[in-house]
Amino acid sequence: MQLGLIGLGRMGDAMRQRLVRAGHEVVGYDRDPDVSDVPDLTSLVSSLAAPRVVWIMVPAGEATRATVTELAGLLEPGDLVIDGGNSRFTDDADHEALLASRGIGYLDCGVSGGIWGLDNGYGLMVGGRADLVERAMPLFDALRPEGPRDEGFVHAGGVGAGHYAKMVHNGIEYGLMQAYAEGWELLGATDVVTDVDGCFKAWTRGTVVRSWLLDLLVKALEQSPGLDGIDPFTPDSGEGRWTLQEAVDHAVPMPVTAAALFARFASRQDASPTMRMVSALRGQFGGHTVLTTRDTAASASTIPASDLR
Amino acid sequence: MQLGLIGLGRMGDAMRQRLVRAGHEVVGYDRDPDVSDVPDLTSLVSSLAAPRVVWIMVPAGEATRATVTELAGLLEPGDLVIDGGNSRFTDDADHEALLASRGIGYLDCGVSGGIWGLDNGYGLMVGGRADLVERAMPLFDALRPEGPRDEGFVHAGGVGAGHYAKMVHNGIEYGLMQAYAEGWELLGATDVVTDVDGCFKAWTRGTVVRSWLLDLLVKALEQSPGLDGIDPFTPDSGEGRWTLQEAVDHAVPMPVTAAALFARFASRQDASPTMRMVSALRGQFGGHTVLTTRDTAASASTIPASDLR
Amino acid sequence: MQLGLIGLGRMGDAMRQRLVRAGHEVVGYDRDPDVSDVPDLTSLVSSLAAPRVVWIMVPAGEATRATVTELAGLLEPGDLVIDGGNSRFTDDADHEALLASRGIGYLDCGVSGGIWGLDNGYGLMVGGRADLVERAMPLFDALRPEGPRDEGFVHAGGVGAGHYAKMVHNGIEYGLMQAYAEGWELLGATDVVTDVDGCFKAWTRGTVVRSWLLDLLVKALEQSPGLDGIDPFTPDSGEGRWTLQEAVDHAVPMPVTAAALFARFASRQDASPTMRMVSALRGQFGGHTVLTTRDTAASASTIPASDLR
Amino acid sequence: MQLGLIGLGRMGDAMRQRLVRAGHEVVGYDRDPDVSDVPDLTSLVSSLAAPRVVWIMVPAGEATRATVTELAGLLEPGDLVIDGGNSRFTDDADHEALLASRGIGYLDCGVSGGIWGLDNGYGLMVGGRADLVERAMPLFDALRPEGPRDEGFVHAGGVGAGHYAKMVHNGIEYGLMQAYAEGWELLGATDVVTDVDGCFKAWTRGTVVRSWLLDLLVKALEQSPGLDGIDPFTPDSGEGRWTLQEAVDHAVPMPVTAAALFARFASRQDASPTMRMVSALRGQFGGHTVLTTRDTAASASTIPASDLR
Repeated sequence: MQLGLIGLGRMGDAMRQRLVRAGHEVVGYDRDPDVSDVPDLTSLVSSLAAPRVVWIMVPAGEATRATVTELAGLLEPGDLVIDGGNSRFTDDADHEALLASRGIGYLDCGVSGGIWGLDNGYGLMVGGRADLVERAMPLFDALRPEGPRDEGFVHAGGVGAGHYAKMVHNGIEYGLMQAYAEGWELLGATDVVTDVDGCFKAWTRGTVVRSWLLDLLVKALEQSPGLDGIDPFTPDSGEGRWTLQEAVDHAVPMPVTAAALFARFASRQDASPTMRMVSALRGQFGGHTVLTTRDTAASASTIPASDLR
Repeated sequence: MQLGLIGLGRMGDAMRQRLVRAGHEVVGYDRDPDVSDVPDLTSLVSSLAAPRVVWIMVPAGEATRATVTELAGLLEPGDLVIDGGNSRFTDDADHEALLASRGIGYLDCGVSGGIWGLDNGYGLMVGGRADLVERAMPLFDALRPEGPRDEGFVHAGGVGAGHYAKMVHNGIEYGLMQAYAEGWELLGATDVVTDVDGCFKAWTRGTVVRSWLLDLLVKALEQSPGLDGIDPFTPDSGEGRWTLQEAVDHAVPMPVTAAALFARFASRQDASPTMRMVSALRGQFGGHTVLTTRDTAASASTIPASDLR
Repeated sequence: MQLGLIGLGRMGDAMRQRLVRAGHEVVGYDRDPDVSDVPDLTSLVSSLAAPRVVWIMVPAGEATRATVTELAGLLEPGDLVIDGGNSRFTDDADHEALLASRGIGYLDCGVSGGIWGLDNGYGLMVGGRADLVERAMPLFDALRPEGPRDEGFVHAGGVGAGHYAKMVHNGIEYGLMQAYAEGWELLGATDVVTDVDGCFKAWTRGTVVRSWLLDLLVKALEQSPGLDGIDPFTPDSGEGRWTLQEAVDHAVPMPVTAAALFARFASRQDASPTMRMVSALRGQFGGHTVLTTRDTAASASTIPASDLR
Repeated sequence: MQLGLIGLGRMGDAMRQRLVRAGHEVVGYDRDPDVSDVPDLTSLVSSLAAPRVVWIMVPAGEATRATVTELAGLLEPGDLVIDGGNSRFTDDADHEALLASRGIGYLDCGVSGGIWGLDNGYGLMVGGRADLVERAMPLFDALRPEGPRDEGFVHAGGVGAGHYAKMVHNGIEYGLMQAYAEGWELLGATDVVTDVDGCFKAWTRGTVVRSWLLDLLVKALEQSPGLDGIDPFTPDSGEGRWTLQEAVDHAVPMPVTAAALFARFASRQDASPTMRMVSALRGQFGGHTVLTTRDTAASASTIPASDLR
């Protein structure tokens, strides 16, 4: 079928290729004219036959909101907009309402798989009305991995459910990544195990912890043995935070997810204010040495053994 | 090759089958005479041709120690003992020393894969001398999954390294399980997502979080939709605790692993002493209602909105 | 000076007494006519001489919002409203804007001290314009503890800063309470220490951990030795959640605060969904016994020692 | 009464002064001849009248063990040794057994209060036989704060109980410090509150969070506003680790204590291996930018908004 695709970045471009491979016709728009099929959204809309399907694949927040708003003024009743970006689920109700006022349908779709999705297919989580989901199913079938539909696609609920499921998916992902990484750090801290990276590789078949993330870890370790030169600085793109905020709103204890998110926050701090205070306080009651520069920390192993409280 | 296998429980029995399928000759001993090939360890040893290989697959701690001790008195110089149980790595040096005093070799081998290993093969992590590892390699090759040897087997280091790697593997496993489960709880707490179990199934292909554990979760959800009737009571079999104690000894922060372990501890408490104290304290300074029985808790939603501090 | 005080519950009533003791004139209103000086807010306002000061001490959220809204219609330019409740700081800008449109001033004031404030004085954290703070200072001086003003009072910043500071204060409080309680649980779990409650009492003088909360814990332990009969069910009144959400918004790692909040959430669950899933999963890969009712859990100590993976 | 005191460092010296002030006779030994009253332990013992009381105040572990061993060879039946250092409670049984074989009594005594104890008195937690505790009571009474005995002293149980109680005390202390410091970091991260240090000062009277540690925090903030120049590097002297290991042994969930300990571990890492792995993994599946040096991190705010997975 025919599809308008807005946003041809790393993800959008790969999705276009996978859709085309499956026989669909994709008209792509990107603000970068070098990769765009059409000069603007007006042209995109006019180049599609009604009833249209337009898939948005741009950064969440401002960019997505602006795109939905512009589309609301360009599309016609009976058209369908699908937001496949990493939008916060709370945005979806607004987007749906805005489009519904023009008679335009709306679906939200969480897309997982990253840069590997082109070949492996993408895991899809969709929210919205069942008849709209049915209408877009040929697209979902092209994007999702081969195999039974319910092993790579779910109609998770009403509007917002797709992004909600993707948000939780990413929250889980944070915890999984952190769990492997903590184990790797411990293996590196002991003298007992001498082939740390080999352990990770050996875990990829037969073990309880085998997973796609573990396969990727092995790739990373093969590219940079010991991960030498990798900086711990780790951004977060929002879903982990939203997950934790939902946990708080629903009184759900999520200690692992929170710990994984906090570890990312901490990775971006040069000097933890919290620990500056703990260190200062320790000096107050114990007369303990309080270091005043990171340089000094280099010689911290010389803190006297008698530095007890 | 020929192998003596001690311990024919769930794990030992399946390993015996897999070894036999690969053409090895296995003489098994178990204290349960109904499944044992020989009446005692003396018979086991006498039924094997020297130099012998004996694989121990009994519970860690007392049982393994007793078995090693008895074998030290029965085996001959040049024989080899492999401990494939979930022993603490700190036991291995003792076991090796005891056997070495009789000229008997020792390897420790962490085995992962659970009840699925019979068909999938077992992930193996081995510690000990390289020549002994080489000698037992036909057995390891039979037990490990098909595919490249280094994707299901690792010679992780000297004596103890195999159990150390298995210990960390299990620590990671705790974190992975908890991460999925926290996400599942949050999905169940929101009204936005209506097909929670469907999300888990949809994640099994294409997504970043796909894994063998996720496949098993889907099985569990299919057997008991919503996991109705499953009690939260969750034992721990030691490796998670040892992992955390190693983390403490090596000053490695492992917040996710700790959180997963603590969640198991908490799952086995009827009434958290910690929270009884927090509740009592809250009553002291705020005049807040302090509940005195769990029955009362059933009506906790009736705590007055004015119950503020 | 003269003050209108709205809300004569546990906190409001005690504050009225402390203000009167200091020589201020308080006209109180409560929806409970038995304790109210006036029948309604209209009467309250008409009984005060302009320019008026009205202090709101009602539950945060709906009740406070309704009161501010009604006051906006009753008060006159030059009057001053102080919200001393546990409002979320994000409400303050709205309340100020609503009142400012009528020429009415607004301050937010976090109040700490609980039921002990009547005699000890209340810790006060105030947000808003400096001239308004100055105007209400006689009231703050009456409410705060004796001693230097800056040891029981702070003008923390603009509108919202008072409630923000109180929010963080309560977040800290969660962590402090949890820290003591975890220690108490551990002392109770060992055989080494036989006088657990005596330890807590002994810590009240001279030690590093002495505090007002510890004094209250000793009171609680004296009233209920071992805290027998206290249920772990622990509500939370919002500030802990808001603190964590602010932490997430500002990328501040707050693992202790989060852990304390999650412990409260968990205390209110009869059966953790997370741990039901972990338990079910453990059964999938390990063939471990999975308990299906809490009754069964009572005999969990009988899980076979051979229940290893 | 007469006392031999071994170890005249920061703690030992202050304790000597407090004991002398109370009228006791103290013969002090330190390996530093400038502060020592006697040249060696032999002289110390010979300068005391039997039955002797000798108080050890040297670093835990090797130094304490060596001192106990030497004293076992020098003292006589009926003498009494008190270990007031921060020994691990598991050392106490050994020390007692060694001394008991010579007819020498043993008590372990946890001492809290730091450098302030000279004037405030020390919180004391004692383990051992009741008759020995009674015999040393004049010393305990001199060292503990004024006030009722049970508010600064506890006979916590048999041998080891004093150090156990002190260990838990310090574990709690870790959590308390971390709770305050997390709140301080959040206050510093928001624009809403402009007088952060003023909030801490204002909390010292009347509030729920007032404590001796908070008083010390205010001192620290007054000495270094904003704690400028304080390095986050924070050592730990053992008790926090031992507490967590006891928690693991007894299956007690201690998430706050663990988080506080892990934060100290993390404060001493230049580059978290865990987060290097998380960052590397993120790059694998998302094509996200992976920073390779900390310098690069300085410009991390320039990571493209399109860096979504």
